[in-house]
Amino acid sequence: MVKIGILGVGTVGASVANILESNADIIEARAGKKIIVKSGVVQNLSKERGVNITLSDNPLDVVNDPEIDIVVELMGGVDEPYSLVKKALENGKAVVTANKALLAYHRYELQEIAGDIPLMYEASTAGGIPIIGALRTGLSANHIESIQGIMNGTCNYMLTKMINEGALYDAILKESQDLGYAEADPSFDVGGFDASHKLLILASIAYGIDAKPEDILIEGIENITQTDVAFAKEFGYEIKLLGIAKKIGEGVELRVHATMIPKESMIAKVDGVMNAVTVVGDRVGETMYYGPGAGGDATASAVISDIVDIVRGNQGPMLGYKKGLESGLKLLSKDDIITQYYLRLEVSDESGVLAKITSTLGEFGISIESMLQKPSLQKSRAKLLFTTHKTKESKMQEAMKSLSSLTVVYGDIAMMRIEK
Amino acid sequence: MVKIGILGVGTVGASVANILESNADIIEARAGKKIIVKSGVVQNLSKERGVNITLSDNPLDVVNDPEIDIVVELMGGVDEPYSLVKKALENGKAVVTANKALLAYHRYELQEIAGDIPLMYEASTAGGIPIIGALRTGLSANHIESIQGIMNGTCNYMLTKMINEGALYDAILKESQDLGYAEADPSFDVGGFDASHKLLILASIAYGIDAKPEDILIEGIENITQTDVAFAKEFGYEIKLLGIAKKIGEGVELRVHATMIPKESMIAKVDGVMNAVTVVGDRVGETMYYGPGAGGDATASAVISDIVDIVRGNQGPMLGYKKGLESGLKLLSKDDIITQYYLRLEVSDESGVLAKITSTLGEFGISIESMLQKPSLQKSRAKLLFTTHKTKESKMQEAMKSLSSLTVVYGDIAMMRIEK
Repeated sequence: MVKIGILGVGTVGASVANILESNADIIEARAGKKIIVKSGVVQNLSKERGVNITLSDNPLDVVNDPEIDIVVELMGGVDEPYSLVKKALENGKAVVTANKALLAYHRYELQEIAGDIPLMYEASTAGGIPIIGALRTGLSANHIESIQGIMNGTCNYMLTKMINEGALYDAILKESQDLGYAEADPSFDVGGFDASHKLLILASIAYGIDAKPEDILIEGIENITQTDVAFAKEFGYEIKLLGIAKKIGEGVELRVHATMIPKESMIAKVDGVMNAVTVVGDRVGETMYYGPGAGGDATASAVISDIVDIVRGNQGPMLGYKKGLESGLKLLSKDDIITQYYLRLEVSDESGVLAKITSTLGEFGISIESMLQKPSLQKSRAKLLFTTHKTKESKMQEAMKSLSSLTVVYGDIAMMRIEK
Repeated sequence: MVKIGILGVGTVGASVANILESNADIIEARAGKKIIVKSGVVQNLSKERGVNITLSDNPLDVVNDPEIDIVVELMGGVDEPYSLVKKALENGKAVVTANKALLAYHRYELQEIAGDIPLMYEASTAGGIPIIGALRTGLSANHIESIQGIMNGTCNYMLTKMINEGALYDAILKESQDLGYAEADPSFDVGGFDASHKLLILASIAYGIDAKPEDILIEGIENITQTDVAFAKEFGYEIKLLGIAKKIGEGVELRVHATMIPKESMIAKVDGVMNAVTVVGDRVGETMYYGPGAGGDATASAVISDIVDIVRGNQGPMLGYKKGLESGLKLLSKDDIITQYYLRLEVSDESGVLAKITSTLGEFGISIESMLQKPSLQKSRAKLLFTTHKTKESKMQEAMKSLSSLTVVYGDIAMMRIEK
């Protein structure tokens, strides 16, 4: 019999305890041993949790309990779970965590501390989708060429509504908050930060890249308007918030941003709160993994899959690379990202404006791929929407500054990146 | 260092050898050990294989070689690979096979023979998609409610062309043969037999069902016409050849057939030669796995993922259930399948016909959900297309016999099942 202790018995923790009880038959058949939850830790003991386990408000009651074999960390936050996971590993206990922030900041220290003790984290990325297992094991024969992930259900729900129903950003954000999909302060989701944590975890397994959120390009969906949506439709794109990792020579691009992608691509067809991750391997080609990215039971499903794997005695380097055999790939600077761009400008509706814009872009070596002019709500102005051929991020940023300084250009320039 | 022997160095075998050499860096980093191919076996030694390994035409040179740790079986067929895999396991060697026919007939005997020796088969089902790993490990917390798989790329390519481009069955079959997607004798693919082997493998892991192809309902795509395609479009369906496994109480439906599915479902969006498997777990909900179902490198990617897993020392019951903890679920009879049906009849274009048809169906307790009448190419005849509410397969078969015997009905009745 294997005994579990749960740090943080909230929605996911309660699901873990309940599924281990209700699905005990299949889980024992899969794992080969009985698995029971011995105890859990909560901050507030007086709150009803709907679980049949002993609760304490002292994490050390779990972490130092010699009877507990596997500690499940579901607290959230970074510093406290880091010290508790460290202690659990030092006590020789296997650890399963769903905590993406913890891993976004401390995954390499934790791998070092864990050594041969299992530390698993399937639930940290894309909820119930077994994407960590796919990358660590299923695609192990491949050099990974790229990853594109829809890893934030809130953003995907909002973008789907904006595109399919013409909803306005502010209205759909409010609706998402009312439905419980978005927090009162939505910036962690809509700003792309949540997706960035998950991207960093996948990038470690795929590429061995030890980066933190601060090191990579992170943008959200806050500035997308119905004008952008209309342009995307006109030119055959969907708009998705993607976490993107891409190998370019000996470097790796890591970035999170709203992205125009061809509507025929599989990942473009993923709508609503669902998540999906497309992985291209050099030998297997394109594979995609789709499913629920959040929710108590879906996340608990991933947590328990890790527990089963540990109970079976399974091994493998935590972050995919054996020590001493790291990939040697380096994170590319944000400035060196190369992609196609979409720009939206408000300009004077007068002759010669387009020539000024294109010649300004030309100074930075940027050429236009497609163009659309739309009437503006403001008199004597027009909206100019276009896509560029591939160029470097640094060139695009400089070009945008230069465009902004033109007297025929009004207000901020909206920009979105394109992936084909 | 781990040494591999390959039985059958054809397209996939050569890819396995080549990838183990070209991607040796990442594979050693993933597995923690060097993996090399020591030798391979072919029928015809004079044919050039494009690989750097010692070849023999005697399988026992691999199976009895004390230096070989893992035997990779890629021969095809059933009887010869069965005896060789058996011998390899008896010699204490781990085995990786991509042979779906072998497993469709002998997976439970092989599990028994293997005991604690790893016998893995990720490549047997849906090529490069790590669906076996997802079912064995990623979804281990779940009772599986259903599986729907597009597991034959040839059929999916043909159906996509028939639906998106209005191609006729015979023309597109010829094109598929010219492109090398379909064999000269295409019946193994278009008749649903290939998909049935894969479905049986998935059904073992999901449900512990020990069935053989002869035990389940297998139909192909040979009778689909553009009339059916037009009806499907009109009513919002795609047509896919699906392998379906579904838990109904303590029983499991297993069946392979052309299926009408709502075009909004994720699996309906999978076009061309690609494969995909949707799995619904009782806790995780719906997940889907998408990728290439065939091809040397994609299949080899799956073979090597098993090798890496074995080298890592990973374990777990071969077919997902620990001995003594089997599910106890039973295969339902074909007659007891319950689903919705689509029927196409050629009838006399005269008054009272519809009443006769519906009253005949009514005798078997079958009611109509939607209906469409189209002109026939034959004078004084009409095509009657309709869908029914849920009914039992046995009732539908009896009703079809009864309808066929009506004087107002001409020729064979076409039938397709519907899954919503």
